[in-house]
Amino acid sequence: MTNLVNSLGLNISITEAGIGITRRPDLAVLSFKKPVHIVGLFTKNKIVASPVKCCKDNLRIHKQPRRIAIVVNSGCANSCTGQQGDETCKNVVKHLAGKLELEFEQVFPFSTGEILKQLPEKKMLYGIDRALESPHHTFEEFAESIMTTDTVKKIASQNLQINGKLHTVIGVAKGSGMISPNMATMLAYVFTDIPIELDDFKDLHREVCNHTFNSITVDGEMSTNDSFIGVCPAFGESNDKSEMISTSNNHWPIICQAYEKVCNELAVKIVEDGEGATRIVELKVEHAFSFQDADRVARGVANSPLVKTAIFAADPNLGRILSAIGACAISRFDENKISVQINEYEVIQNGSLVKGYEEKIARQHMTMKKIDLLISLGVGSASRKVMFCDLSYDYVKINSEYRT
Amino acid sequence: MTNLVNSLGLNISITEAGIGITRRPDLAVLSFKKPVHIVGLFTKNKIVASPVKCCKDNLRIHKQPRRIAIVVNSGCANSCTGQQGDETCKNVVKHLAGKLELEFEQVFPFSTGEILKQLPEKKMLYGIDRALESPHHTFEEFAESIMTTDTVKKIASQNLQINGKLHTVIGVAKGSGMISPNMATMLAYVFTDIPIELDDFKDLHREVCNHTFNSITVDGEMSTNDSFIGVCPAFGESNDKSEMISTSNNHWPIICQAYEKVCNELAVKIVEDGEGATRIVELKVEHAFSFQDADRVARGVANSPLVKTAIFAADPNLGRILSAIGACAISRFDENKISVQINEYEVIQNGSLVKGYEEKIARQHMTMKKIDLLISLGVGSASRKVMFCDLSYDYVKINSEYRT
Repeated sequence: MTNLVNSLGLNISITEAGIGITRRPDLAVLSFKKPVHIVGLFTKNKIVASPVKCCKDNLRIHKQPRRIAIVVNSGCANSCTGQQGDETCKNVVKHLAGKLELEFEQVFPFSTGEILKQLPEKKMLYGIDRALESPHHTFEEFAESIMTTDTVKKIASQNLQINGKLHTVIGVAKGSGMISPNMATMLAYVFTDIPIELDDFKDLHREVCNHTFNSITVDGEMSTNDSFIGVCPAFGESNDKSEMISTSNNHWPIICQAYEKVCNELAVKIVEDGEGATRIVELKVEHAFSFQDADRVARGVANSPLVKTAIFAADPNLGRILSAIGACAISRFDENKISVQINEYEVIQNGSLVKGYEEKIARQHMTMKKIDLLISLGVGSASRKVMFCDLSYDYVKINSEYRT
Repeated sequence: MTNLVNSLGLNISITEAGIGITRRPDLAVLSFKKPVHIVGLFTKNKIVASPVKCCKDNLRIHKQPRRIAIVVNSGCANSCTGQQGDETCKNVVKHLAGKLELEFEQVFPFSTGEILKQLPEKKMLYGIDRALESPHHTFEEFAESIMTTDTVKKIASQNLQINGKLHTVIGVAKGSGMISPNMATMLAYVFTDIPIELDDFKDLHREVCNHTFNSITVDGEMSTNDSFIGVCPAFGESNDKSEMISTSNNHWPIICQAYEKVCNELAVKIVEDGEGATRIVELKVEHAFSFQDADRVARGVANSPLVKTAIFAADPNLGRILSAIGACAISRFDENKISVQINEYEVIQNGSLVKGYEEKIARQHMTMKKIDLLISLGVGSASRKVMFCDLSYDYVKINSEYRT
């Protein structure tokens, strides 16, 4: 970890700025004293929060490699806050840029929490000053400072050897509701001390996002603030361009693997911490005609309230699964070719109950904390994996008592 | 009502066939001794139950006008039951056709209840025999016999004068879960003694369906059995072709109105009886660029678990509404043109909170049993109305304890 912190020149500063209702650390500043590469992916919601607009702009105009800073607050999403929200966000960025002697476009702001609430500017500016007086915090503390309805902090890391040297990939995330395959009310940051060529880093980041954060769902909701950020050093240790790693490097596969492992672990933690979740399901839809078909069926089943309540009840209500499949707008479909397995127990074959099917056995499988659900459409070769959780009383409780 | 029963030659027979788990009247036979016109619309789910397949086939090959019979059972949906399900359904139809001296295609079967369960053929055939020995039941009793998770029976009627003669439109429906704008786990039957030209009757039926049953949602689910049937006499009282009513008739508008009123009342009753519903919302999306856009936003908001749990909590969580709008895949969108009203109380203007907005007032509006929600997208002239209910603990309870 020391390697990573050194090669990024990273310092994490955290404070209690009093943004939300409860008193807790809610403002983090991450400053990178060494030139880095930063890559980012954001929500596909048509309404985006002020900080997301600012981050996207800055990513576009920011000249890489350069020093950067990241500022994250919880307690307020600064979303749907109009011009005033945009201005507050800009003032926060300006203030931090001034403090750290950076240009405006070198600072990347993030907010998470309630929508439609104006971000309290004075508290933010004062909080930044106070945070900077409290440096040298840990990734664990950073993870804690960005939590909202999360019940556990989410952090994951992988070590790997490259040319005899130990390297690290570490990720920190928040998110438990408003989670859908198009990212989520989610902030995720992955840092590594492996110097990766910018274009390859972008591709890696996007590819991994599709397999991990874009493959989980809690409630099919897509927020206005979802952001997934990656940071790596822009130079090797000896500042030699030849040390930069690209797809042609022998170690590329293990780097991809480590990056994906970290993001996958974070994604799994988000689903496991899904609002009210008591059970998680790893759903694979296979033998679809196209990836789009597989994706639609996976989302359709994963977001069906009737499937989700059945899973909560450990009820092998296969009719609801079939009905949810049939409700999807897909291009190729043959009811008589559908098969379904629960934890490798075959339950549906050719669209009907398997001969000798025993509901007692299926019910036993459904009582597990983690269920593997395999749906084969039998009309092609495309597939899609999605991880989701059940719909319980507590989802309703958490989301109806959220502000009361 | 006597007029209606006479002009259709209608007889309703009901019995307890023991199809479901609980002992209750669960089998109804409606026989029409006079030649009628029958029209029908069915689920858009790609998986359709055996009786739906049979009804669609029979509607296609059935020569109109002719006598018909309708047979409905609750307690088993005969869906996803493969070849055996199709055969059982056909045997039921054949048996009833034989009993009533009708052709196969003159009998229309309907089933509602659990999916994936084989319909018990012997019980159905024996039940039909028993039902026919118990004729002269009422529409109320018919409504009761088709209930599943419904907590109230759903029936509505309208009287109207045509050329000094009293006519009736009467409707009976079931449905409370798996309700989505593409119809629902819903059976609905509308009968009238007004002799309407077949093609015009078809158009009227489809048009009214779009405004009523296709404009309600409980949980965004679409079942495999949804059916909406209309029946009217095929001849006037004196068997004179000139008595048939078409769109050119002076009374056409009041006929349409009466038909729509009946269906709307049934649709409202379905949402009010939505599984676990404590509040209903009449949502109008207006000033959309296209009907498709308006429809997508209406469904997106109406099916958002976060919006629905907020409504359960009487929480004016406007951020969730805006976020749900932004998540919809629509062609024209300008965040700064969105306005929102709750019961005519303006809360969002130009995408932000209205100046002087008071959450206390908004919260008061949200505590009402029926809420009017108006969303204006400000980018066109298309609109869409949808009625939906909240998501409460009881939705989870009903759907997780359904079979346990």
